[in-house]
Amino acid sequence: MSTNESDIRAFLERRTDAHRSKDIDRAMSFYSPDIVYYDVVPPLRFTGTEEVRRNFERWFDEYEGPIQLETHDMTVVPGEDCAAAHMLHLDSGQRKSGLQASIWVRESVCLRRSSGIWSITHEHISIPFDPANLQVWLPADKDQPA
Amino acid sequence: MSTNESDIRAFLERRTDAHRSKDIDRAMSFYSPDIVYYDVVPPLRFTGTEEVRRNFERWFDEYEGPIQLETHDMTVVPGEDCAAAHMLHLDSGQRKSGLQASIWVRESVCLRRSSGIWSITHEHISIPFDPANLQVWLPADKDQPA
Repeated sequence: MSTNESDIRAFLERRTDAHRSKDIDRAMSFYSPDIVYYDVVPPLRFTGTEEVRRNFERWFDEYEGPIQLETHDMTVVPGEDCAAAHMLHLDSGQRKSGLQASIWVRESVCLRRSSGIWSITHEHISIPFDPANLQVWLPADKDQPA
Repeated sequence: MSTNESDIRAFLERRTDAHRSKDIDRAMSFYSPDIVYYDVVPPLRFTGTEEVRRNFERWFDEYEGPIQLETHDMTVVPGEDCAAAHMLHLDSGQRKSGLQASIWVRESVCLRRSSGIWSITHEHISIPFDPANLQVWLPADKDQPA
């Protein structure tokens, strides 16, 4: 494992730990100001730290206490100043809605290093769903990309 | 735009064109043998070219003719021998199910160059969906990651 790969694994583990503890300021410290975020929920994308922060606050608020996240099967592709990784998380915890399910989510992430500091410039989180139960979110015109 | 970035944009456009024309052999030529693919539909992931090929054949078979794919808002992060990109596609066409909707999908992709040849080692495609209509796919035990 190269130094870069172990650095990036440790960086992503610290990021996930900030999500577990719902520490919004610590969580945001891992993201670049120009972050483009694709989440499980609409809209199609969140851009910039303000939108991503509000979306994390919404996510954190769904749980009574900490969020349980177990990370599995992480693959890291390290480069000199850019890197990519993908992994699965088993997301559980006491949800305020009463939902008790543990849900597998997929994550892909892109990182860049600037002045020696890594940050996440893109993150993509999703859950597969059965097309037999297809209930696709169709964006209103105002939400359409240019 | 660096040479790498324009190379990768052209590579991904040729890949998308193979998807449009449902040319399975040409499409598969863009993917690495160790591809890990997260798709809109279950399972959580497809690994290796045989699983990805069968999943593309399933997708291609949903359409009467070509698949219409318009790519928007692509961002490429080029490195020397690895690269990442993310983008949106507007997916339409005549579906055999009768569904006429144009659907926005999000794509994140990771590429590596080996012996001068780029290939896709990871791809993640998803659609956001409204949690009010949450119908999450909960994998059976046999489908759970290790």
